[in-house]
Amino acid sequence: MIQRITIIGTGLIGASAGLALRAAQFPGEIVGWDRHPDQAQLALKSGALNTIAGDAIAATVAADLVLLSGPVFAIQDWIEKLAPHLKPHQLVTDVGSVKVAIAERARPLFGGPGQAGFLPGHPMAGKEVSGAAHADARLFANAVWLFTEFPGHPLAAEWRAWVERFGCRTMDIQAARHDEICAWVSHLPQFLSTALSAMLEDRFGDAPDLRAIGGRALREMTRLGASPYSMWRDIAHTNEEAIAESLLSMEQRLTHMRENLKTPELRDEFLRANRFRPPGQK
Amino acid sequence: MIQRITIIGTGLIGASAGLALRAAQFPGEIVGWDRHPDQAQLALKSGALNTIAGDAIAATVAADLVLLSGPVFAIQDWIEKLAPHLKPHQLVTDVGSVKVAIAERARPLFGGPGQAGFLPGHPMAGKEVSGAAHADARLFANAVWLFTEFPGHPLAAEWRAWVERFGCRTMDIQAARHDEICAWVSHLPQFLSTALSAMLEDRFGDAPDLRAIGGRALREMTRLGASPYSMWRDIAHTNEEAIAESLLSMEQRLTHMRENLKTPELRDEFLRANRFRPPGQK
Repeated sequence: MIQRITIIGTGLIGASAGLALRAAQFPGEIVGWDRHPDQAQLALKSGALNTIAGDAIAATVAADLVLLSGPVFAIQDWIEKLAPHLKPHQLVTDVGSVKVAIAERARPLFGGPGQAGFLPGHPMAGKEVSGAAHADARLFANAVWLFTEFPGHPLAAEWRAWVERFGCRTMDIQAARHDEICAWVSHLPQFLSTALSAMLEDRFGDAPDLRAIGGRALREMTRLGASPYSMWRDIAHTNEEAIAESLLSMEQRLTHMRENLKTPELRDEFLRANRFRPPGQK
Repeated sequence: MIQRITIIGTGLIGASAGLALRAAQFPGEIVGWDRHPDQAQLALKSGALNTIAGDAIAATVAADLVLLSGPVFAIQDWIEKLAPHLKPHQLVTDVGSVKVAIAERARPLFGGPGQAGFLPGHPMAGKEVSGAAHADARLFANAVWLFTEFPGHPLAAEWRAWVERFGCRTMDIQAARHDEICAWVSHLPQFLSTALSAMLEDRFGDAPDLRAIGGRALREMTRLGASPYSMWRDIAHTNEEAIAESLLSMEQRLTHMRENLKTPELRDEFLRANRFRPPGQK
């Protein structure tokens, strides 16, 4: 049974997981650690944690379940750092945005004889702002929490049950398919919004009326422009091929649209888009 | 004084204007006409209109102010149809998304000796769905209602005062500058969302799990994919040059990003985007 959870990385997602566990009446202890002590303090104050770990390794050694939360490279680092200290009865899980790179790093170190377990996970939820100050017990409500393949572990089903109590739907998916789909439905939307925001900053950054003129469409399409490079750098590095493919496809799509602003091809493009987003549906 | 308003085109924007006038305690009569009789019926039932006009021309002849609401080409058509029937004490205003093409059509017919007045307008508000069924008295709240240059008319100030009572900020802008800025902050976001939605439909239309996996980022970035071609065709035709320029710029920006997924250029792009959308601000 999962009685003690240690969260490594108590920023937006890690602290939200702590709050969601509390809201779901998790009866055990939640210990947290963050490389920025103020983030752990904020998480503690919000009620996401019972205590702050003085030493991260010691706190994971004492845990039943370790939740790794942070950018992909940080999760990879913790996988390597923790492996020698953990025992087979313990389960490590993560919330990283890219799964092949993380599972590959974990495979030789977890899930084998004498090794702790690992469960690669990814909640499809987030915000354009980072940090424990924005944590929210309801962040994962109605989202999908994806899990990718790894040798099984006795505590895996229990963690999945907690996640479902956060209001999530859990779904199993192959790691490679995860990274491909996320490139198109998560990473591409982010890079589009960043590119649009950066372009408008270059063109109209000195025109204060611009933001006033732009309506809801502009606000929505540039909301993710506020997202931090620190997180997306790792995603760009570890899922580069699929992201590059989706960007190239988008470039070609825009070229086609630009060359057909006055032809029936534009109608066809709107009709295809209407099939993806049927008018009148949320 | 504006005592009788005739709204030609009682879809989303026209019916919302009627509701907003009522909410702002407009004491006069609001008459409406739509080429789809069911739209006029819906607007009447919602309280946006006092009566439905049997004959559109006759209803405008009896009005102090005529509001033209609909796609750009429809507004241009009404400008030509109505001009011979109206008198100098009457003011026509519109809500068209492109202003040069509309003002050019109106200039020889309105605002001169013996002619009715014209006031080109554009509320920066809307929805991805059309029709009177989605009309909302608060649609214009906190939005900017733009007006472009045209010879003055005694009723113009009164219409602007009503618009401000809708919760709008009014702003004057040159028609050419309007069309240029709107290409970047309104038309480009629409075409990006349509292209993204159409591309995902082509690639994943048969994968029902896709929508479940995509989170808020996907929902937001494709919301405008539901927008109707009927409205955007006219905008693409009448603002083609500026829209093509913005699309080309976006294509180049995405190419640059794709070629720099692993270089510090990606960081610079995120930082520029963060200046346009500072983290932690709404």
